[in-house]
Amino acid sequence: MKATVYHATGDVRVETVPDPKILEPTDAIVRVTHACICGSDLWFYRGEAKWESGWRTGHELMGIVEDVGSAVRTVAKGDRVLAPFAFSDGTCEFCRAGLQTSCLHGGYWGGADNDGGQGEAVRAPQADGTLVKIPDAAADDERLLRAILPLTDVMGTGHHAARSAGVEAGTVAAVIGDGAVGLCAVIAAKRLGAERIIVFGRHPARLELARKFGATDVVTERGDEAVEKALEMTGGGPRAVLECVGNGASMAMASGMARPGGTIGYVGVPYGALDGLKLRRMFSQNIALRGGVAPVRAYVAELLPEVLTGALDASPIFDLDVDLAGVPRGYAAMDQRAAIKVLVRV
Amino acid sequence: MKATVYHATGDVRVETVPDPKILEPTDAIVRVTHACICGSDLWFYRGEAKWESGWRTGHELMGIVEDVGSAVRTVAKGDRVLAPFAFSDGTCEFCRAGLQTSCLHGGYWGGADNDGGQGEAVRAPQADGTLVKIPDAAADDERLLRAILPLTDVMGTGHHAARSAGVEAGTVAAVIGDGAVGLCAVIAAKRLGAERIIVFGRHPARLELARKFGATDVVTERGDEAVEKALEMTGGGPRAVLECVGNGASMAMASGMARPGGTIGYVGVPYGALDGLKLRRMFSQNIALRGGVAPVRAYVAELLPEVLTGALDASPIFDLDVDLAGVPRGYAAMDQRAAIKVLVRV
Repeated sequence: MKATVYHATGDVRVETVPDPKILEPTDAIVRVTHACICGSDLWFYRGEAKWESGWRTGHELMGIVEDVGSAVRTVAKGDRVLAPFAFSDGTCEFCRAGLQTSCLHGGYWGGADNDGGQGEAVRAPQADGTLVKIPDAAADDERLLRAILPLTDVMGTGHHAARSAGVEAGTVAAVIGDGAVGLCAVIAAKRLGAERIIVFGRHPARLELARKFGATDVVTERGDEAVEKALEMTGGGPRAVLECVGNGASMAMASGMARPGGTIGYVGVPYGALDGLKLRRMFSQNIALRGGVAPVRAYVAELLPEVLTGALDASPIFDLDVDLAGVPRGYAAMDQRAAIKVLVRV
Repeated sequence: MKATVYHATGDVRVETVPDPKILEPTDAIVRVTHACICGSDLWFYRGEAKWESGWRTGHELMGIVEDVGSAVRTVAKGDRVLAPFAFSDGTCEFCRAGLQTSCLHGGYWGGADNDGGQGEAVRAPQADGTLVKIPDAAADDERLLRAILPLTDVMGTGHHAARSAGVEAGTVAAVIGDGAVGLCAVIAAKRLGAERIIVFGRHPARLELARKFGATDVVTERGDEAVEKALEMTGGGPRAVLECVGNGASMAMASGMARPGGTIGYVGVPYGALDGLKLRRMFSQNIALRGGVAPVRAYVAELLPEVLTGALDASPIFDLDVDLAGVPRGYAAMDQRAAIKVLVRV
């Protein structure tokens, strides 16, 4: 089959790789129909994460089950499914607690050992715990499928930022970052009842989308100026800060502006984040840091029904579609910020 | 009056200073009867916090009201009172939310601008929001007064660690540090129903006291060995980690051992803490960091009644009594770890 392979900084290629096979009775084979390119893929694409040549890429996928191992019970050949970016057994202590990303038998797509989503098919480990069947009514509705696809990562991740930051009815929230996750965090904060949602970003088109998603204010300043503005606009800082970037500058903003007693919900994979963390301010003002890699598998049950009714639709974040051969072009577009998020129609 | 004054690293002296006077209508004058020396006083004593010669010391105190300003309503001349380590107006947004340490008109004892607890008397700003009247029945009971005194800081701080870490009935908890705050954190975790309380420390006498307070296990290893032991003993880490030290080594232990999905409740004033924080592990395992400077004023209402009935008694942490002239000797004893916590009987 064809799949995307990492070669070097700025160099991913679609190549022929071995077809996936059932290796464990808990495996399924899924033919990929939809995948994405993620902001977090840019960490290795830009050389900031250590990756090795030959590793496979892509961790957001939907597709059709082609085969299942003998132990698989919840999905069957022909089912339309989605897969979150982490696979998980669904039965361990952490899965039962809704923290599937810490599954004792789990892992992540791609890399050295697993198929990646940016390819024609994957071996899906722990199929029962990982894959979610998409109801038949939606299985051939391309518009709905595009709205379901963000549940594989970014919409669940934005939701995790909002939940971790404690957003509830009436909350004054800030969202740091206008990337796909930040935009989904706006949707999530709005959905949970935030009274005010202030987005910090720089890109007019993204900020316009943020407003459509429910942002009440946008701030284009950065760094200390952004912090000052946030403190001024909110009379002492937003209670919930949804940190959706993960670097030192964004963490400095988050920890500089959060209201005393407030919470930073962070979901941006941290690269250099500690360099920015204002721990003394957090300590003196009892500002909490919660979040991490989002257990998006846990959130599918909560979010999918609303997607199916049309109440929840993050699909406007997809502003560039490519086919599998176009994946390298999609990476370049994301890298140059020419695209918010790329949908790969395999 | 006489009061303790900081001069230089390792040099505090009891000297004559101006008598306190009512400056604002919200002030009270309190003649100090009991004070403490705190582990956090060692930061300036050891030169790790920047202090200037002439600054006043001590932030834990009880005493008798000598005079009140015209606006003071809740305490009167002759009342026996306790004062938490931060003063607060009791009426602002943060005070009403139980976060008096972020009071908009609050501050801390000692330093350049305020009287310190390690002296004969203090001007108590924001007397209504700060001082708590001790019931008359306890006002002359020296044994009870010794048990009340820890509510001015360390018992409330240990309680804050436990609350911040989310300790509840059945929790498996770790307490990092066997100082006075760590020992109070053991009491707090036990009181909140922790099923298991593992204390990490090195001093046999303190660990013995920890056991008396409710610790189920003690671990004397440090660093990575302590982390390995914690993971092994608990099958993957304690869910609640009560970090009661504040340096890089203790934060590395806390963030290395907390169970996925668990919480670090930190109350040790952070010095170099970021150097130890394992943020990547915290991110990948959704380990939260909560806590900070404890709003002990908020906890008096919860804890004082249990002290009065004898159900809660942290006073065994006081293993050295000095009079005011003995304060420098008390600092030296704390610095050399010859004393857990020093009570100053003024």
